[in-house]
Amino acid sequence: MIARYTPRAFAELWSDETRYGIWLDVELSACQAMETEGLVPKGTAASIRAKNIALDPSVIDEIERTTRHDVIAFLTHVEQLAGEPARWLHRGMTSSDVLDTSFAIQLARAADLLLERTDGLIAALAVRAQEHVHTAQIGRSHGISAEPVSFGIVLAGHLAELKRGRLRLARARQEIAVGKIAGAVGTYAHLSPELEERALSSLGLSAETVSTQIVARDRHASFFAALALLAAGIERFATNVRHWQRSEVGEAEERFSVGQKGSSAMPHKRNPVLSENLCGLARVVRGALAPALENIALWHERDISHSSVERMLAPDATATLGFMLERCTGLVEGLVVYPENMKRNLDRSGSLFFSEAILLALIGTGLGRQEAYVLVQRNAMKAFQGEGGFRTLLGEDPEVAARLSAAELDEAFDLEHSLRFAQQIVDRAIRA
Amino acid sequence: MIARYTPRAFAELWSDETRYGIWLDVELSACQAMETEGLVPKGTAASIRAKNIALDPSVIDEIERTTRHDVIAFLTHVEQLAGEPARWLHRGMTSSDVLDTSFAIQLARAADLLLERTDGLIAALAVRAQEHVHTAQIGRSHGISAEPVSFGIVLAGHLAELKRGRLRLARARQEIAVGKIAGAVGTYAHLSPELEERALSSLGLSAETVSTQIVARDRHASFFAALALLAAGIERFATNVRHWQRSEVGEAEERFSVGQKGSSAMPHKRNPVLSENLCGLARVVRGALAPALENIALWHERDISHSSVERMLAPDATATLGFMLERCTGLVEGLVVYPENMKRNLDRSGSLFFSEAILLALIGTGLGRQEAYVLVQRNAMKAFQGEGGFRTLLGEDPEVAARLSAAELDEAFDLEHSLRFAQQIVDRAIRA
Amino acid sequence: MIARYTPRAFAELWSDETRYGIWLDVELSACQAMETEGLVPKGTAASIRAKNIALDPSVIDEIERTTRHDVIAFLTHVEQLAGEPARWLHRGMTSSDVLDTSFAIQLARAADLLLERTDGLIAALAVRAQEHVHTAQIGRSHGISAEPVSFGIVLAGHLAELKRGRLRLARARQEIAVGKIAGAVGTYAHLSPELEERALSSLGLSAETVSTQIVARDRHASFFAALALLAAGIERFATNVRHWQRSEVGEAEERFSVGQKGSSAMPHKRNPVLSENLCGLARVVRGALAPALENIALWHERDISHSSVERMLAPDATATLGFMLERCTGLVEGLVVYPENMKRNLDRSGSLFFSEAILLALIGTGLGRQEAYVLVQRNAMKAFQGEGGFRTLLGEDPEVAARLSAAELDEAFDLEHSLRFAQQIVDRAIRA
Amino acid sequence: MIARYTPRAFAELWSDETRYGIWLDVELSACQAMETEGLVPKGTAASIRAKNIALDPSVIDEIERTTRHDVIAFLTHVEQLAGEPARWLHRGMTSSDVLDTSFAIQLARAADLLLERTDGLIAALAVRAQEHVHTAQIGRSHGISAEPVSFGIVLAGHLAELKRGRLRLARARQEIAVGKIAGAVGTYAHLSPELEERALSSLGLSAETVSTQIVARDRHASFFAALALLAAGIERFATNVRHWQRSEVGEAEERFSVGQKGSSAMPHKRNPVLSENLCGLARVVRGALAPALENIALWHERDISHSSVERMLAPDATATLGFMLERCTGLVEGLVVYPENMKRNLDRSGSLFFSEAILLALIGTGLGRQEAYVLVQRNAMKAFQGEGGFRTLLGEDPEVAARLSAAELDEAFDLEHSLRFAQQIVDRAIRA
Repeated sequence: MIARYTPRAFAELWSDETRYGIWLDVELSACQAMETEGLVPKGTAASIRAKNIALDPSVIDEIERTTRHDVIAFLTHVEQLAGEPARWLHRGMTSSDVLDTSFAIQLARAADLLLERTDGLIAALAVRAQEHVHTAQIGRSHGISAEPVSFGIVLAGHLAELKRGRLRLARARQEIAVGKIAGAVGTYAHLSPELEERALSSLGLSAETVSTQIVARDRHASFFAALALLAAGIERFATNVRHWQRSEVGEAEERFSVGQKGSSAMPHKRNPVLSENLCGLARVVRGALAPALENIALWHERDISHSSVERMLAPDATATLGFMLERCTGLVEGLVVYPENMKRNLDRSGSLFFSEAILLALIGTGLGRQEAYVLVQRNAMKAFQGEGGFRTLLGEDPEVAARLSAAELDEAFDLEHSLRFAQQIVDRAIRA
Repeated sequence: MIARYTPRAFAELWSDETRYGIWLDVELSACQAMETEGLVPKGTAASIRAKNIALDPSVIDEIERTTRHDVIAFLTHVEQLAGEPARWLHRGMTSSDVLDTSFAIQLARAADLLLERTDGLIAALAVRAQEHVHTAQIGRSHGISAEPVSFGIVLAGHLAELKRGRLRLARARQEIAVGKIAGAVGTYAHLSPELEERALSSLGLSAETVSTQIVARDRHASFFAALALLAAGIERFATNVRHWQRSEVGEAEERFSVGQKGSSAMPHKRNPVLSENLCGLARVVRGALAPALENIALWHERDISHSSVERMLAPDATATLGFMLERCTGLVEGLVVYPENMKRNLDRSGSLFFSEAILLALIGTGLGRQEAYVLVQRNAMKAFQGEGGFRTLLGEDPEVAARLSAAELDEAFDLEHSLRFAQQIVDRAIRA
Repeated sequence: MIARYTPRAFAELWSDETRYGIWLDVELSACQAMETEGLVPKGTAASIRAKNIALDPSVIDEIERTTRHDVIAFLTHVEQLAGEPARWLHRGMTSSDVLDTSFAIQLARAADLLLERTDGLIAALAVRAQEHVHTAQIGRSHGISAEPVSFGIVLAGHLAELKRGRLRLARARQEIAVGKIAGAVGTYAHLSPELEERALSSLGLSAETVSTQIVARDRHASFFAALALLAAGIERFATNVRHWQRSEVGEAEERFSVGQKGSSAMPHKRNPVLSENLCGLARVVRGALAPALENIALWHERDISHSSVERMLAPDATATLGFMLERCTGLVEGLVVYPENMKRNLDRSGSLFFSEAILLALIGTGLGRQEAYVLVQRNAMKAFQGEGGFRTLLGEDPEVAARLSAAELDEAFDLEHSLRFAQQIVDRAIRA
Repeated sequence: MIARYTPRAFAELWSDETRYGIWLDVELSACQAMETEGLVPKGTAASIRAKNIALDPSVIDEIERTTRHDVIAFLTHVEQLAGEPARWLHRGMTSSDVLDTSFAIQLARAADLLLERTDGLIAALAVRAQEHVHTAQIGRSHGISAEPVSFGIVLAGHLAELKRGRLRLARARQEIAVGKIAGAVGTYAHLSPELEERALSSLGLSAETVSTQIVARDRHASFFAALALLAAGIERFATNVRHWQRSEVGEAEERFSVGQKGSSAMPHKRNPVLSENLCGLARVVRGALAPALENIALWHERDISHSSVERMLAPDATATLGFMLERCTGLVEGLVVYPENMKRNLDRSGSLFFSEAILLALIGTGLGRQEAYVLVQRNAMKAFQGEGGFRTLLGEDPEVAARLSAAELDEAFDLEHSLRFAQQIVDRAIRA
C-alpha cells in the first residue's frame, strides 16, 4: 500500500488500530459465547466492553519485541487496560482463532468497499452506454476496421464484464467470510462447534467446515482470483481507452483538467495516463494471485508461511483494486467522446464493411458461398486500393449487377439496419 | 497434452475429430435456427445431417495450408462432402461464432469430466475419513507436534476443500457454457438475438450478454482459476502424504505395487512418487492461469492473441487436472495407513499437548493467564528436556499441586475428550 | 508441444529416440571414465558402441509399465540388445546421474537451436534497420504523436533488445550445461570427482559444484527466465507491428500471401495475425517460468516433483520459442513498410513536435523555462484546435516574434536536424 | 514495503528525499555535460551545487497536485530554491531522461545492498559448512532415507546455489545500471550521444544502446528475475530447515531467544517461524516477476503503464529480499545443529543405505546387475520389515555368502569411505 494508490477507506481498514480493534471484537464475541456455555463467568465480555479501552498499537509492538508473539502481546496489553476480567479472554483458543477470524472480517469489509465501488463503476458505464446507444463506431478486429458497432454496445460489453466480476467478488466474499474458533488444530478440544457458531454469527461470519489450526487458504486464493479478474476487466476497458485516444484514432479521450501538463517537452500532448496507470495496476493486482495460490498447500495442520504473504499482499491488492475502481469510475464519467471522429473513421473504411451484407445478398440469389466470396472480394480489393467507392464498383461489376438491383445494393448498405439491435443489447446488459 | 498425463477421455475430447464434429453441430444448430426465421430453406440442416458425413481432419488441414483460415477450410470440406445445401451454412455468421461456441462446448464437456472425477475423489476421501474418525494422530503446526487430531478429521479437511473446489468448478462451468451466434463484432447485423438464443439452447449453452467478435475472455480466465484452485487442493493433500510417508514419520504410505522398483541404487526404498508427481502437476495447471488472465484485455472487438494460448493450454490444463484427479483418487483408495505409527508419534511428544488443558484448569482455579502460563511452561520445558513425564512433573510441582488434584490432572490428560467432536466434524464435512 | 507450433528440429530433439540415445551416450561416457579408473574392464564402452544397437522406445515403455522405473527399464533393454558387457553400465551411479546429465544435453542443444534462430532474427532486423535509417516516422509516447523518430532507429531498438536476450540465453546455456555423475545424494560414494569431470567433459558439460541427488534446479529456472525474456522481446516487436498495421495507422503490414483469406465475413481485411499469434505465444513461454521457479525448493537431497513440470514444459517452452523466432524472422523479412503513410502521420501532427525546439530557442534568448513553456503551449493549443499552422502561429505571436526571427523559427522546424544521429544509433546497435 | 520487512537501508534508498536528491544529481550531471558542449553557460551546475539546496518533498507533492506532472513539479521547486541558474536545467531533455536514469541509480544501489548481504549469507554458510564437513547425516530423496551425506556438503550446496544467485544479480546490476539522456523518443534531437555518455559516466552508468522515450524494460524484468531466483535459493534452504526442525527429525533448529513464546496454547513448542517466514517472502519476491515481464511490451516509443508497477514493486521486491538475506544470515549463524540426532536418524535406517555398496560388490564378482539386485533387495526387504540387521542377513544369505566374505561385507559397510570426498566438495564450493 503506497499512499498514491490507496484510498482512505482502505488505509483505515488495514491500519493497526482497526486490526487490533477487530481482534478485541473477536475475543469478546468468543467470550460472550463462552459465557452462554458456562465456561466463563457471565458478564465478563460486557464488563470489558463497558471499559471502552483504547488499545495503543505502539505498546503492543513494544511487548511483541520481547515475546515475539503478536497475540500474546495483544492480550497482555488488553489485560493492562481492562484488568482482571481480561484473564478470561482467549480461553481454550489458539492465536489463529483470533487472527484468521479477524482477517476474515477485514477481507469481508474490503470486499464490501470493493463491491460498492464496482457498483459505482457499473452505474457510470450504464449512463454512458445509454447515452451512446446510437453512436456508430467502426468495430475492429485485429485492430483492423471490421463492421460497424455502436459505442453504447461497446460500453455495455465492459459493463457486462464488470457485472460478472462483481458476481465473482460477491461469491468470493461469501467464501472468505468464514472464521474459526476451534482451538489448536481445529478439534474444539476446549470449545465446541456450537460455541463457535454462536461467536461467529454475532460477527457476521460462518464457521469453517473443517479447520486445521487455521482457516483453509484456498478460500483466500479464490478471493485473490476474484480481485485479479476484476482488475483485468478494468484493464481491458483502459486498454480500449488508450486505443480510442491514439492520435490517429481520436474517438474518445480522458478528461484533461485545467493546469494539468501532458509532457515537459511536448506541451500540447494529451496522454491517456489514467488508463495506462490502470493497465499497470492490473498487473500488480494480478501479481498477488500466484503467491496466494502457493499459500494453499501448507504443511499438516498449518505452517505460517502464508502469513507474510497476506500481510503484504492483502492490503496491497485490495487497496490497489479499490483505487482502480475509483479512478476508472472517474475515467468513465469524464470520458470525452468524439462521435464525429467515430464517423470519420467509419467512413474511412469506404463502406467495405457492408461486404458481408452483399455476400449474403448474393448467396440469397442462389450463388454458392465461394463464388459469391470471389465477387465480393474482387470489388473490395479494388475499393481498398482506391480504384473507386465500394458501392459504385459493385454496381459496375456486371456479374454483381446481373444478380442484385440498385435498390437491393442500397438496402445492403444501410447502417441503421446493421445496428438495429443496439438498444436491445444495451438494455439486456444493464438489466442482467 | 503428453500421453503420460492424459486420460483417454481428454485425448478424445481434444482431438481434431471431436473438434470438427462439434463445429458441424454448431453450424447445423445455427442453420436450424435460421430455418425457423426463414433465412434459410426449411430442411437444410436435416438434409445435411442425414448425409452423416465423415469429416477428414487431414483434408481440412490441407485446405487450410492454402487459405490460412481454419473455418473457411472446414466449410470448404463440408461442401465437398455435403454438396449444395452446405452453401447455406454459416450464413451471416463470423468464424468466431463457430469457434467460440464450439470451444465453450469442449470446455463444458471438460468440466463435466472433471466434475465426475472430483466426485470420485470426494467419495474416496469420505470412505477413508469415516474409516479413521477414531484414529488419533498428532496434529502439527509448523511441522512441530502440537495437539492430537483425528486422521479422519484431517481427511475430512481435504474433502471439504475439494468440495469447495468442486463448487467453484461447477460455477465456472456455468460461466463458460456460453456461446455466441451474433456475427462480426457481435451486432447481429444479419442475425438476431432470438435466433442466437434458439441455436445455443439446442446446444446446451446460453448466450453471451454482450459479444464483441468473440465471447469475453474473463469467462475463460475464471475457468482456469477454478482449475488452478482445484489442483492446489490436490497439491495440499499430496504434500501431506509426502510428509506422512517420510522415513521418520511413517504414518501413511502410497500403495506399493508388486514389481515396482523404488530406486535403482536403493532397492528397499518406497518413495511417495505419485504424491510428488501431483505436486509438480499442480504447478503446471497453475502455470496456465497467468496466460489466461493476460488473454482478457484484447483490443477493441477482438484480437486473436488468445487463440494460441488456448490451443495449447486448454487441453493441457484440463487433461492434466483430469489425470491428477484420477491419480489422487487411486492414491486415497490405496493409501496404507499405519495407526500404530501415529500412536508412536503421538506418544513421543510426552503428552505435552495436554498443556493447554492444564493451562485452562489452572486458570479455572482463578490464576491469571500469564501466571498459569509460567507454571505450565516450566514443567513442559523440563519434560521436553527429558527430566520426566509431563503428568508426573506437574503432580510434583507444589504450586500446581496446590491448585489441581490428581483427579483433575488426570481429567486434563484425556485423549478421548480432546477428540470428542471428531465424528461430528467428519459428518458435517461429508454432508455439507 | 503441439505440431502447429513445433519446428521439426525441436520435435526431433525432444523425441523418445533422441532422449534414449542421449541416455546411452551418458552411460557410455561414464563407463569409459570408469575404465580409466579401473572400475570397469577396459574396452567395455567401446565394445557396446561397436554393436551400434538400435533402442526401441516402445520396448522400454513396455518394461517400464512393470518396473515403474524408467532408467531400470532402459538399462534392461540395453542389456537385451548389447548383452553381457552392458552389466557394467551404470556402476555406482544413480538414475539422476543419467537423467539430469541427459536433460542438460537436451537443454543445451535446445539453447543452440534457439541461439541460431535468434541470430537469424537479429540479422533480419539489421537489414531492415539499415534500409530505414532515413525513413521518418512520428514517434509516439502514450500512443500520442510525440516527436519524429527514424523507423531504422525503432527497428534497431528491437534488435538491441534481442541481442540482450541472446546474451542472457547464452549465459543460461552455460548455466544449464552442467551434468552430474556423483551417485546417490551426490557424495561420489562409489565414484569420484575426477571420474565425473572426465565423463562430463567428453559430453561437453561441466560438473555441478555441489550435487544433491540431482543437479540444482535454480539453473533450470534461470534458463526458463531467459526464454521468457526473449519471448517478451518478440512480443514487444509484434505489439508494435499490430499498432503499425492498424487501419488508422497503416505504416507497416505483414506480408499477405496469395490465397490467404483474412476473414470469412470481411474478405478485404488484412489482419496482423502472425503478430497477434506471437503475442499469445509469449504468454505461453512466460507461463512456464513460475512452475520452474517453484521447482527450485525441493526437499532435502531431492524430491521428484520437478520432473513432471520439466517433462511437459521444457519441450513446450523451447519449441514454442523456436517457432516464435522463426515466425518473427519471416515477419521482419516480409514486413511491408509504407514510408508515405509514415510521412502522412508525421505531417498530421502539424509540426507540433517542433515545440521542444522552439522552447529551447526561447530559453536560449534568456526567457525562463516556465514563461517559454507558456508561450509555446498557447500556440500549440491553437494549432491543435485547428486555428492555424504551428509555424505560422508562432510567427504571428508578438511575444515570440520579439524573441525569435523567421530564420531562427525555420531552423527549429528542421526534421533532418532532429534525426541527424539516426545512422550513428543504428550502427551502434548493430555493432554492439 | 511494510516496516516489518524493510531494513533501514532500503527504507532510506526508496524514500522521497533520496529520490529527489538523485533527480537533482542527474539534472546537474546532464547540465555539466551540456556546459562542456557549450549548450549551457559554464558554471551553471557548480553554482547550483554550491547553494546546497534542501528539497522538500511535500512542496513538490503540493505542486504536482496542480500540474499532475512530477518532473515539472520537481523543476519548479528547484527553481524556487536555486533561482535563475536553474532555468538551464533539463535543457532538451524529457522527463524520462531524469526518471529512468535516477531509477537506474536506485536499482543499482539496491543491487549493491543486496550483493553485500548475499556475501554475508555466503560467508555464514561457509563457516557452518566447514564446521560440519564430518557431521554425517542421512541423505533423503523423496523424503525417504537414502544414503549418508555430510551436513557440510548439504550446507555447501546451498552456498553454491547462493553464489550462482549472486552472479546473476551482479550481471543484472550491470544490465540495469544504464541511463538515458537522449530526449523525447530517444533521438538526441537537442542533445548528443557524446553528451549522454559524459553525463552518465559521471553517475556511474552506461548509456542505453537504443533508447525509446525510456530505457528498455527487459533490463528491469531481468533484474526482477535475478531477485526471484535468489529468493528461491533462500526458500530452498528455509524449507530444509523446516524439515530438519520437524519434531520427528530434530536434526537442527532455529535459535530460540530468551523470552520468545512459541505458541499461546502450547508453550513448549519451538517453531521454525523464521524459516516459514522466509518461504512466504520468497513467494512475494517471485510474485513481482510476472508484472515486470508484462511491463516489457510497451507501446511504440513508450507508454507509462510500467510506472505504477515499478513504483510499488521495485521497493517491495528489493527491500523484502534484503530482509530475507539478513534474516537468513542470522538463521544460518544461529542454527543449532544436533549431530547426535543426525546419527540417530542415520542409524534408524538400519544400514540399508549400504545396499548400493553391496550391489556393486556383488556385480564385481561377476554377477549380472539384475541378479545382484534381486539378492540385495530380498535382504533389504527383510531388514526393512524388521527381520534382522541388514549386515547380518546378508552374511546369512547363502547366495551372498558364496560370493562375498565377511571382510568384504564389512568393507562395504564403511561410512567414512562413503563420505571421503566431503572436504573436497565443501572446499570446491567455497573456492568456486
